[in-house]
Amino acid sequence: MSRIVRVAGAQMGPNSKYDSRKQIMDRIIALLEGSAKQGAELVVLPELALTTFFPRWFYQNEDELLAFFEPAMPNPNVQPLFDRARELKLGFYLGFAELAREKDETGTLKTIRYNSAITVDRAGRVIGKYRKVHLPGSTDFRPGLTYQQLEKRYFTYGNLGFPAFRGFGGILGMLICNDRRWPEGWRCYGLQGVDLMLIGYNSASFDPNGGEGESAELRTFHSTLAVQGNAYMNSTWAVSVAKAGNEDGGGLIGGSCIVGPDGQVKAQCKTLGDEIIVHDADLDLCKQGKEKMFNFAAHRRPQHYGRIVEQVGAIEPPVAPPAAAE
Amino acid sequence: MSRIVRVAGAQMGPNSKYDSRKQIMDRIIALLEGSAKQGAELVVLPELALTTFFPRWFYQNEDELLAFFEPAMPNPNVQPLFDRARELKLGFYLGFAELAREKDETGTLKTIRYNSAITVDRAGRVIGKYRKVHLPGSTDFRPGLTYQQLEKRYFTYGNLGFPAFRGFGGILGMLICNDRRWPEGWRCYGLQGVDLMLIGYNSASFDPNGGEGESAELRTFHSTLAVQGNAYMNSTWAVSVAKAGNEDGGGLIGGSCIVGPDGQVKAQCKTLGDEIIVHDADLDLCKQGKEKMFNFAAHRRPQHYGRIVEQVGAIEPPVAPPAAAE
Repeated sequence: MSRIVRVAGAQMGPNSKYDSRKQIMDRIIALLEGSAKQGAELVVLPELALTTFFPRWFYQNEDELLAFFEPAMPNPNVQPLFDRARELKLGFYLGFAELAREKDETGTLKTIRYNSAITVDRAGRVIGKYRKVHLPGSTDFRPGLTYQQLEKRYFTYGNLGFPAFRGFGGILGMLICNDRRWPEGWRCYGLQGVDLMLIGYNSASFDPNGGEGESAELRTFHSTLAVQGNAYMNSTWAVSVAKAGNEDGGGLIGGSCIVGPDGQVKAQCKTLGDEIIVHDADLDLCKQGKEKMFNFAAHRRPQHYGRIVEQVGAIEPPVAPPAAAE
Repeated sequence: MSRIVRVAGAQMGPNSKYDSRKQIMDRIIALLEGSAKQGAELVVLPELALTTFFPRWFYQNEDELLAFFEPAMPNPNVQPLFDRARELKLGFYLGFAELAREKDETGTLKTIRYNSAITVDRAGRVIGKYRKVHLPGSTDFRPGLTYQQLEKRYFTYGNLGFPAFRGFGGILGMLICNDRRWPEGWRCYGLQGVDLMLIGYNSASFDPNGGEGESAELRTFHSTLAVQGNAYMNSTWAVSVAKAGNEDGGGLIGGSCIVGPDGQVKAQCKTLGDEIIVHDADLDLCKQGKEKMFNFAAHRRPQHYGRIVEQVGAIEPPVAPPAAAE
């Protein structure tokens, strides 16, 4: 038996803050067309695919900041993407900055910003929505640094949990960038039987402020390792896709990859530009792991996992008092 | 600053059920001496290091089964190991079958069997104890199979949780075999600030009953990947050590490895026999990860991790009812 989904990862080269939405949309549509040409049913685009990674700058003017956000999905700016994908019968994962209107505790409507992703089916319907839970970076402006990482300032932590959903003949999950390094999120999806995980990312390839740091090679290795390890331990396919290259002075790793439920890399991008990878993902290959090695019902012992939900940070064991002289 | 611990992994070739305890003890002592010669302070031995992997057989005679167990640690059988290690000022991790005496709910003393490991410091004191939580295999005899995997029958699930402890200048944790594939255990240790994880294993290299199965290469890859991924995501060193080779007709993978907090393999065994690997593990290299990327206090969101403790097995999202005709 087999349930094959031809998946594509559409890595994007850098967007610039000087690019028009039209320029970026044209590149995305070219990636959709290239993916469809290779027979893909589902294409994964990066995190914040429609803009530059704007949390690298400190905006005091709210209007400047909000220009990066989507007030609805779809909206006139992205309608061409939705239209072309539906014509091509191509589903997609899209990362974007979301401007939501939500009621607070007092019932007052408020505008809230999220780092979000949606999955759209081959008929153009939004079938899944996710808001990034693991926001990295800082809340406050860090003086003296040319480049910031202000995700914690510009975005509210995702409030949807890790909601798996059905589509493309399988059970899908979404993560965004830093989320892929957190086994908790993967496991929450694994506990819903996920067999295809979709991930977009923007990950620094060097410290743009000139500090010492890990090499781009090591950072790319980490990005791939996190996906391989978690895909294996949850017996799921994963498509993990970068925005890459030198983006407005901030370097971003590439290494977009399609990983099997056996943890092996099936396809990986070689450039830092717009590049498509495609693979036939047989979702039934997830069954062996789910029924044997990672049969959760047979082998998990949640009574010993309490720390995972009962504490946030690490609590080290006490230092023993010095032994009494003997 | 640096806190360097020279760690060794002492992979063992197969034990046979026909080997005397003395024969096995002599090989272990040779491995201790070889590790000490290379300047190691701490050597990791495999799971069930003192015996063959006896859960591959069905024992109806309790005495035959109990012959594989240690009624106390140390005991006269293993005293030479403790003595020689203390002489060499060499700490060690040792996996063994434990026969414990514990009171049940009614206060009655009972004999309970665990798959256990201890860590002993350079002065010969037991400083840590662990009982395997993730027991694989089956509880019941499976008719028609020459080789069984009866860990769930012969052992009780570990009841000590994941207890980190201090030693060798760091914070240590222990896992046993299958545990290394479960991110929950790693995270429970990570949440105690572990910077050196000790693991012994016996993992099949093929299906001894002649069924189709994964190649030894893929199984070794999985063993290494699980350690790399979890070491990286918890920013800890890990020493993961096999009993390897053809053991009484059951094949066991090798691939014993020392992995850094950056997820990279620093040393790895090349044979399926008795073999020592050594590495200078600088525990301070764990700090970068713990303070930045994996600063748990800053970035974890336990309010979304509830499934990890609230359910054991996977619960799939409902299948949507067929859409009404439009």
